[in-house]
Amino acid sequence: MRVLGIDPGLRCLGWGVIEVAGSRLSHVANGTIRTEGSDLAARLLTLFAGLGEVLAAHSPDAAAVEQTFVNRDGAGTLKLGQARGVAVLAAAQAGLAVGEYAPNAVKKAVVGVGHADKTQIAHMVRHQLPGVQLDGPDAADALAIAICHAHHLQSAGRLAAALKGAA
Amino acid sequence: MRVLGIDPGLRCLGWGVIEVAGSRLSHVANGTIRTEGSDLAARLLTLFAGLGEVLAAHSPDAAAVEQTFVNRDGAGTLKLGQARGVAVLAAAQAGLAVGEYAPNAVKKAVVGVGHADKTQIAHMVRHQLPGVQLDGPDAADALAIAICHAHHLQSAGRLAAALKGAA
Repeated sequence: MRVLGIDPGLRCLGWGVIEVAGSRLSHVANGTIRTEGSDLAARLLTLFAGLGEVLAAHSPDAAAVEQTFVNRDGAGTLKLGQARGVAVLAAAQAGLAVGEYAPNAVKKAVVGVGHADKTQIAHMVRHQLPGVQLDGPDAADALAIAICHAHHLQSAGRLAAALKGAA
Repeated sequence: MRVLGIDPGLRCLGWGVIEVAGSRLSHVANGTIRTEGSDLAARLLTLFAGLGEVLAAHSPDAAAVEQTFVNRDGAGTLKLGQARGVAVLAAAQAGLAVGEYAPNAVKKAVVGVGHADKTQIAHMVRHQLPGVQLDGPDAADALAIAICHAHHLQSAGRLAAALKGAA
């Protein structure tokens, strides 16, 4: 099973695909989609087309995005929301269910604590996906989101198996 | 020339199409796309598909969206942003340039003042588009956005014509 993680952003969108085989995770690909300029429509088109290429190239079976950090910077939240909406749409249009995780949940799943910084996240992503070459901090975050979702799916799978065994 | 106005919202997205012939405006169609449930991906798909149908049915030549009101309610701003991103993407994918107008600019263009309420907007939309049946307040706002964009395009056209004449 392949899981796509997405760290949405209007200027810089990180993505990462991992392979989940039982309890074993391995790296498939990661990257960053960048947009520039003042034309919002053109930037959203670039994100959507870029994610379309990622989905076509790596055929993930599931996707997850970070629950965008919401703060007092309304304009920043709006930009993130626009990028996030397009990212979720791209995955949904490819027929994928889209999981959502709070940043703290992602950090806890990957590093073990909810307040890890970017360096720790990148370190633990490298540890859990041996041989990975990280495209940058946003791609590392996207892989962390994919790992978090894989853990969630593994737990859900174990739970389903346990319930089946008890029936 | 046909102009599509969009009043984005995750729960309720208003749209309206008007025809612009010289300085004369007329109503083509207006409506509301509604989404329900807790599945963000499904709701964004509904908005995107609904706008796709509107674009196919009415073939607008230009589009405009309201510059989403940004306030201290971060979660609300994020939801609006997601709906707005998908709306702008749908128009851009249809090859349309997408204008953006602040709520006050829309009110000023339609009512004449920047602090008009929803009742005044609906009243002036009915006045400027004789015979229109409004689908609801979000559709009325969308038609107001389309009227605002038409005024802008008319001014720009007059400016271009004036510059051409002076050359």
